[in-house]
Parts: sequence; structure tokens; C-alpha cells
Amino acid sequence: MNGDFLFKQVYDYVLNRIELNEWKEDDKLPSIRNLAADMKVHRLTVLKAYQLLKQENRIYAKDKSGYFVQSSDNSKYDNQDIPMISAYVQKNHLSEIHKVPVSYQFSQALIDPNLLPNRYISDYVKKVFDLYPKVLSTYSTVQGDEELRQSLSGYFNRQYKMFTNPDHLLITTGSQQAIHLIAQAFVKARDTILLERPSYSSAIDMFRAIGANIITVDIHPYGYDLEQIEHLMKKHKPRLFYLNPTFHNPTGYTVPPAQRKQLVQLAEQYRCLLIEDDAYSDIYFDEEPPTPIYTYDTSGMVIYIKSFCKYISPGLRIAVMMNGHESVRKSLFTVKSLADNGSPLLNQKIFLHYFSSSRLQQHVEKLRIALQIRKEIMEKELSAANWQWTSPNGGLNLWVQLPDHLSTEDLLTKAIDQSISFVPGQICDPLKQPSSWLRLSYSFANEEQISKGIRKFINLVQRDGSHASEA
Amino acid sequence: MNGDFLFKQVYDYVLNRIELNEWKEDDKLPSIRNLAADMKVHRLTVLKAYQLLKQENRIYAKDKSGYFVQSSDNSKYDNQDIPMISAYVQKNHLSEIHKVPVSYQFSQALIDPNLLPNRYISDYVKKVFDLYPKVLSTYSTVQGDEELRQSLSGYFNRQYKMFTNPDHLLITTGSQQAIHLIAQAFVKARDTILLERPSYSSAIDMFRAIGANIITVDIHPYGYDLEQIEHLMKKHKPRLFYLNPTFHNPTGYTVPPAQRKQLVQLAEQYRCLLIEDDAYSDIYFDEEPPTPIYTYDTSGMVIYIKSFCKYISPGLRIAVMMNGHESVRKSLFTVKSLADNGSPLLNQKIFLHYFSSSRLQQHVEKLRIALQIRKEIMEKELSAANWQWTSPNGGLNLWVQLPDHLSTEDLLTKAIDQSISFVPGQICDPLKQPSSWLRLSYSFANEEQISKGIRKFINLVQRDGSHASEA
Repeated sequence: MNGDFLFKQVYDYVLNRIELNEWKEDDKLPSIRNLAADMKVHRLTVLKAYQLLKQENRIYAKDKSGYFVQSSDNSKYDNQDIPMISAYVQKNHLSEIHKVPVSYQFSQALIDPNLLPNRYISDYVKKVFDLYPKVLSTYSTVQGDEELRQSLSGYFNRQYKMFTNPDHLLITTGSQQAIHLIAQAFVKARDTILLERPSYSSAIDMFRAIGANIITVDIHPYGYDLEQIEHLMKKHKPRLFYLNPTFHNPTGYTVPPAQRKQLVQLAEQYRCLLIEDDAYSDIYFDEEPPTPIYTYDTSGMVIYIKSFCKYISPGLRIAVMMNGHESVRKSLFTVKSLADNGSPLLNQKIFLHYFSSSRLQQHVEKLRIALQIRKEIMEKELSAANWQWTSPNGGLNLWVQLPDHLSTEDLLTKAIDQSISFVPGQICDPLKQPSSWLRLSYSFANEEQISKGIRKFINLVQRDGSHASEA
Repeated sequence: MNGDFLFKQVYDYVLNRIELNEWKEDDKLPSIRNLAADMKVHRLTVLKAYQLLKQENRIYAKDKSGYFVQSSDNSKYDNQDIPMISAYVQKNHLSEIHKVPVSYQFSQALIDPNLLPNRYISDYVKKVFDLYPKVLSTYSTVQGDEELRQSLSGYFNRQYKMFTNPDHLLITTGSQQAIHLIAQAFVKARDTILLERPSYSSAIDMFRAIGANIITVDIHPYGYDLEQIEHLMKKHKPRLFYLNPTFHNPTGYTVPPAQRKQLVQLAEQYRCLLIEDDAYSDIYFDEEPPTPIYTYDTSGMVIYIKSFCKYISPGLRIAVMMNGHESVRKSLFTVKSLADNGSPLLNQKIFLHYFSSSRLQQHVEKLRIALQIRKEIMEKELSAANWQWTSPNGGLNLWVQLPDHLSTEDLLTKAIDQSISFVPGQICDPLKQPSSWLRLSYSFANEEQISKGIRKFINLVQRDGSHASEA
């Protein structure tokens, strides 16, 4: 064990006691001799930690009588008016693009409401009120409705041979909340984490907001470079790797089964949690994708997040996360209890009854066909331009590269002027570098809007591109 | 401006760039001369910051060529297995007490479901599906449904002359989420905040989880000691004061109007946000309580949190927060967008239609009477014991002091054995000190359960107390 590690351990221990107010203003700190004995470190290590804390004005020394807790000095806020407060908050870029109403909506990876089972889902709502007349007068448990967890766990066991059980599940208000809870439970400022490059932009924003040290893993049409991942895990000892291995957002790529298995082994070896976000696996076009990475997990290193609601009823905001390790789950339950004390029960019950109905399967089958048709229309229109993309076998998005000289970030303003929206690649890049990639979702606009909108968009880019070349 | 402040500013600036990965491994830092010029500080200040960062192993120096970003050293996690992760997470004590099912439920400050408008609220649900057939297939905006915000803002204007508008409102998934969002937006580890003593235990847990430096303000039957508050604001420059001034939880005390006005003046003077949590003001017994502190705010220093759902339909999990300062709201919207991207639309629409109905007013009037009767029964039974409490004029709780030698924390285990639950005072104490106070809620148990349960509880305490005296 190296000296820096021990030093940091002592430093953090003392600082935490002070911050939690266990050791209060002008309290005497343990003597260097005693703390060194308690923590089984060298006395010089404690001295070094005390010296740094003294330099940072957290403690002070009195000759011969030792070290004491400094009164907290908040002078750093002396000159702050309220507007300064916002410096604490990281932007959520995607939600800002979505605010703009457009006719050709290719930025939202949401299903067209006309493809959703609006009419008959209200039958299930009435059923819920008949079955549970007091559903609105009680809270759900923090972990989520027992009946729903049973139904979901049964589904995972049948569908993927996951051998999970209802205790392993936590119901959340959408998958975004699931990621947010994980970030709060397991990542603090300066902690290193791995993200795919590109990645889901809201996840990037969340981890940046915490001040995590983000290291990126490239994702390719064939999956990952596992040597790169092993190197990064070895070198940086990341706390977690947030990944989206099935019809990846935004690229649409899928990580093959052999890599899934090896990734779990690496995660176990380097004690790195894998956060598998699975939003799209039911939206496949020709054949079913590989089973989740979670199915290879034997030691609780994978937290699996599944959201069904995107293609059933996004308005319900119900997702589920799953993990096999008790202490991981315990942390998540606690964070959930602090965040909102449990997702609304009504939403869970409505979801339960629709989810366990035979109508769901029929709906999903129809939806796959409708989305495949939209994808094909978008690809056909795009083939008129000289752009690059890998045709995905599922999901809601095309990840398209424009000719090199074009920045898609700059293009967005012009596109919105023409009532077209998309997600520029830079937003999906954890490193936020300028990019000639963009994400086009084919799930929200209908066939006609896709045809017209893509033609209009190609015109815009080609006009703009020729200007750019001239300039 | 003192040197420590400038030093910290430079130190934080450099560290943030490194943590956000804007300055990467082995990148050269700006020269001391340049950074000093950019930040308008003395070169020695920059040198001091670089030296500390070097000591902390975040940067390294090369002779004559300057300072460079160190590769991140994560060796501190070398020995950590997953269970260590839970050390990041603070317990939520209250939710653990609530997990235990008991016959005499005095720990949950929730309304008995039998007093809630279960039967006719389902009419509103059907109405919602008729009015908005696609309510389940769309997301709410991050800020919350426009129609609901209009209705609520109209209500606040009529009820309290608040002169608010729909843009000032943010809809949240329960008031617990509102507090959680505020904590995330405005408080970081080591920041000083004020909490009442005692206070709402989940709020205490949330601020502790962030690592805030918590300073307490005593609350008395007559309100606060404003000199104490001024002294604390002056000395500690707290970022915010979380308070619950109307039928305060757990004590039931109400802060009088004159103090409300002065508190806002203090908050403005010392730039301290006031977080006014108002859950109980509609549950008054004889006369209406003073108008919210928010009504005295002229400069956006108050964030007002209102939850109606507790006495309408807790299962909906709808609350609202309000603030008059644009940059404060902007921070909150961003944090909300990261946390869950907006509360479920269905729940907002159901709430809207019930909230704007005439049935609501009738329901609340009946509820006040029912709860006052339960309170009086509980007080009558309690009068058999020689315990102390101040009879509240509203809210859901009695705050009772047992004879001095009894710790209510120890008592809880014995009470639960007898199927009685309550909240021990220690849980409501931000300083977590042993206490002979306890919170008894009269809102959940019915009349008969209150009578029987309190008698049983007095027997238990008196038996236990005599043992304690003997020991």
C-alpha cells in the first residue's frame, strides 16, 4: 500500500469528522501518536495530514497542546450574490434542445404518441381503481410495489433466465432517475468513472455535475476494444462504467455476447461496477439482440437498468433497476428514500396491469414493424447524400457522419430555423469536442415528416456545406 | 477581500478544470504570471495554490518548464470491495422506523386513508383520460404542466396575495424531492446551512448526506430567537436556512407574523436563502395561521415549498416550489432535468382537476374537524401521565417530553415489541443527541387505536421508567 493512499485516508477521516460536525469548533483533535496507533499508520503520515489541514485552514495548532478544529470560515461567499449560486449547477444540454418546438422532430428519441396504446391503456387505469380503491391515498414502499417487482422478476427469469428475485429490484421514476441515484450513491467529486464515447448526454451531464473524473471508452460497430478497457481499469481503477451495450444510444451499435462475458470478468477483477442501461433491447428489427450483460454477472458487479415505458407509456415514468449484491442495493434504497421516498404507487399499478397483459406483446410486435419502416424511410432519404452511418438492427436512432469540415453544433441553429431538430455529436461526447456526427431519431416523426424533413435537411447541409467550402 | 478567499478561488479554479477533464493528464498549467494576471491576484497566491495542489498530488512540477496535470491516482480504492461503497451513503432513519408494521401507528405523519376522498377521486381520473387521451404517451415539461402551474399560481394569488405567476413555479414529485433538489443545487460539502432544532428528519439526513456543515436554530412555542439567527448568519454566512414555520414538524409550533417579516430582512441582509417548507398550513383547528414567509419576500430570497397531497392523495406525489429570482429557478430547473426530467404528467393532471374542484374545500373542512377530534383524544389520554407538551393549533403531531431520565430512542424498541411506533426526538435532532422528547402523530391511527395505543404506551413508559429509576 503506498504512502499517498494512507495519507489521503487519514486526511479524509479527519476532514469528514469535522464536516459532519462530530468534531466541533475548537475541539481538540486526537494526538498524532494516538491517531497513528488507531489507524495503524506511521506518525509522520498523521503529521502530514494535520499539516495540510492546517494549511487549508480547517484546523489550527497551539504550541505544545496540539491541534484543534478551526471555526468554519465562509469568507469565500462574502462577495456572492444569489446568481453566483448557479455556478454549482451543470447544464442539461439535451433538455434545452428539446424545448424548441419544430415540425421535423429528429432530436427526441421518443416514440410517436400515435404509435402508443393510448386508447386501451385507460381500461387498465379503471381496472386499477377497481382493484385498489385506496391506491391514491397510500405511498409505495421505497423499493417499489411488491406485486410489480414480483411480476417483473418473473418476466426477467422467463425471458433471460436471469434468476433474479423481487428483492433484487428497485422501481424508479424513469431510467433517468435510476442513473441519477447510482451517481449519487457511488460517485463523488474526483472519483474516476468510465463512459462510452459517445454516450447518453443526460448521463454525461449528471456525472459532470458531480465533478467525476470522466475517462472514455470508444464504442465501435463491433463493440469495444477490451484491451483498452482493461488498460483503463488497471490504470485508473474507475468506480463504475456506465454503458448502453444494446442498440447503443446514440450509435445503435450492439456489443457482441463474447465481449459481454469478458467485460463482466474484467469488472470483477478490477472491482468496477458496470451500469448497464437497457432502454432499447425490445425494439429489434430482424433478430433478438444478445441477452443483457447482467445475465453473465455472478458477483453483483452489474446494475441493470430497464425501462419499458418509452414504448408503452412514457408518461408513467416507471423503470426498474436490479442488482445481486445486498450492500449495493442497500445504498441505492437509501439514496432513493432520500430522493423521493418511493415512486408514485398509481403509476406502478397501472404499469403492472398493462405489463402483465397479453396486449403488451401484440403492441410491441406492431411497434417494431412501424419503427423499422420509419428507419428504412429515413435511410432511403439519407442515401441521396454522401454521408456515413452504420444501419442499426434496433433502437430509435441513426448516428450519421457529415463530411469532415462541418460542425453539427453550428448546423443546429440553422436547422432549427428551418424547423428541423437533431442532436449534435458534441452533446453526446463526454469530452465535448466539436464533431461532424449527429443523431437522427426516426421514432417520433411520422413517415411523411421523415421524408420531407430529411430532404429539407440535406438541402440545408449541402447549401451550408458549399458556403463553408467557399469561405 | 482576504487572502484565504483568493487562494481558495485559484485553488478551486485549477482543481475544477482538472476534474472536469478540461485540463488533461500531462497538460501544462498556465504560468504563474499569466494565471495571476487573468484572475487579478498576486503571483504568490497562485504559487501557494499550485504548491498545495502539488502536495495533494494533483499536479507536478518540472524544473524550469512549469507545472503539469498529474495522472489521476486512484490507489485510494485499491483495497475497497463493493461493500465499502455504502460508506458514501447516509442512512435515512425515519424510513427504517416506518418499515415495521404495528397496530398503533403514531410514527407516520400521514393521514388515515379512511379520511381521504378515495371514492370520488377516481371520477377525476376518468375525466383526465377523457380530456387528455394521450396523457400517458407524453412527458411533462421539466418545470411541470403549464395548466397546473396556472391553476396553482391563481390559487396562491387569491389565497395569500402572493402575486406569483406560473413561471415562478416548479412541480416536483412530492415535497421531499423539492428539498432534495434544493440541497443539490445550492449546497456542497463543507457549506454551512441552518436547520431548526428539532427539524424534519429526512431533511436532516439529506443535508448530512451532502456533507453540509449544519448549524442549528432553536425553535420555541413563541418562534425563534432572532438575535440568535442574526448572530449565526453574521458569523457563519450560511447558504440557506431550511425551516418549517407553520405547525412545525415535529413540534407543532408556529412562528408569528412579526418574526416572519424580520427573518426575510435578515435573509436579505446576509444573502441566506430561506427554504420554507409548508406542508401543514391548511390543517388548522381554530383559526388560520399567519401567511407564509414567502409573502414577505421582495427579492427572491425565499423558496416556498407547498405540498397539498398529504391531505388529498399522498399517492400522487405532487408538490410545488416557488421562487421569484430567475437564476435561483434556473438552477432548480436544471437539477430537476437531471434528476428525472419532469414529474409524471398523469399525476399532475389528476391533481389539477381535483384541486380546482369545489369538492376539495369541503373535503379539507371535514378533515380539519376529524383531525382535531383525534388530537383531542390523544391529549386526553396523555393527560393521565405527567408528561409535557404544547398543544398545537394545527398539523398532525404532538411533541411530547417524557421525564428526564428516559431516552426515547431506547424506548422505541420496547414500544415496537408492543406494536406501538413513534418517532424518537434524537431522529429529529440535527445534532443527533439523546433526547427525552418524542413525536406522536394523531393523523394515521383512528380514534379507538389512539385511545388504546396511548394507554398501552403510558403503561409501558411508566413500567419502564420505574425500572430505570430502580436501576
